[in-house]
Amino acid sequence: MPSLLDAIQQRYACHQFVAGQTVGASELSVLREAGRLAPSAFGLEPWRFITVTDKTERATVAHACYDQPAAATAAALIVIVALVDALDPDSDYVRARFEAETRGKDTTSIYQSYRAFHHAEDVSAWARGQCNFAAAHILLQAAHLGLGSCPIGGFDETALRAALTISPGESTALVIGLGQCAYTAPQRMRKESD
Amino acid sequence: MPSLLDAIQQRYACHQFVAGQTVGASELSVLREAGRLAPSAFGLEPWRFITVTDKTERATVAHACYDQPAAATAAALIVIVALVDALDPDSDYVRARFEAETRGKDTTSIYQSYRAFHHAEDVSAWARGQCNFAAAHILLQAAHLGLGSCPIGGFDETALRAALTISPGESTALVIGLGQCAYTAPQRMRKESD
Repeated sequence: MPSLLDAIQQRYACHQFVAGQTVGASELSVLREAGRLAPSAFGLEPWRFITVTDKTERATVAHACYDQPAAATAAALIVIVALVDALDPDSDYVRARFEAETRGKDTTSIYQSYRAFHHAEDVSAWARGQCNFAAAHILLQAAHLGLGSCPIGGFDETALRAALTISPGESTALVIGLGQCAYTAPQRMRKESD
Repeated sequence: MPSLLDAIQQRYACHQFVAGQTVGASELSVLREAGRLAPSAFGLEPWRFITVTDKTERATVAHACYDQPAAATAAALIVIVALVDALDPDSDYVRARFEAETRGKDTTSIYQSYRAFHHAEDVSAWARGQCNFAAAHILLQAAHLGLGSCPIGGFDETALRAALTISPGESTALVIGLGQCAYTAPQRMRKESD
């Protein structure tokens, strides 16, 4: 098993996966667990994960991703959905999260901070941004398992909503294509370090 | 060295660090490298990292973070700054990134997608959300090095701008406190897996 910096260095956006492969249920479970344990502001974990492995469903999702090869050739897809309406300060969802975050102690202070924050923020955009914490965990975990991955941010959200029963109170943050990459890692073209 | 899921499980938001500790230059370098290699949409890497180790400067940053203990007791801080004005489709920055992303091939298609995206999006909020990819890498790398960490999203941005020479064309995404955590990991209070 590679170390963390190995996994970080081995991860790259794979745009074409090998056809006819599968990603095992246990690997998908580890990937979701890696995502579940990601950090989030206020401990709100404002996400849920939809795993897509069925061939017909994969094709529908790929089509919603404009038939990008990274989606069309993926053996499995994990769609990260941002919770939005659930983040209303008066929701049962927020209450449950804050009771967990404060471990049963007084929630007055966190509610005070959060109400001001929620009022000032574009909550949908913010929640999608928070989902990148979970996405980073899933992408690194995939690399650690020797799987190729691709974060896909370009999709027809209306089509994805219809295909995956994503409610109007949620927003699709990211689609992650997974599989065996059909090519070796290209040379990195990163900015130099500061 | 722990494996990736170990690092994921060992990471938690540490709100109090042991006083009088330091984080070594080589560790800080590894943390920045982990952040540098994070994925980003369009390959734009819309971030830069400011490392704060000087005691007086740490106190100034901590004060801008409302003297939260996670900032006030941190041995070092990494401030992730989101690039915003640099993301203008006609900027030299974007051109350099797209030439790198396409590896010298035709950039017409990526420019076409990006111009539409940039026009429709709240770019500042989006860039801050992209910085969470880099933040997740840094936080996991810290856990892998045995360091405690805390993502701090609550700060007086005006004060941080003044303290750290952050330009009006940039936006502070996140402050990360680093050090030896003063307490052991509390019990996790996560949502159950779906």
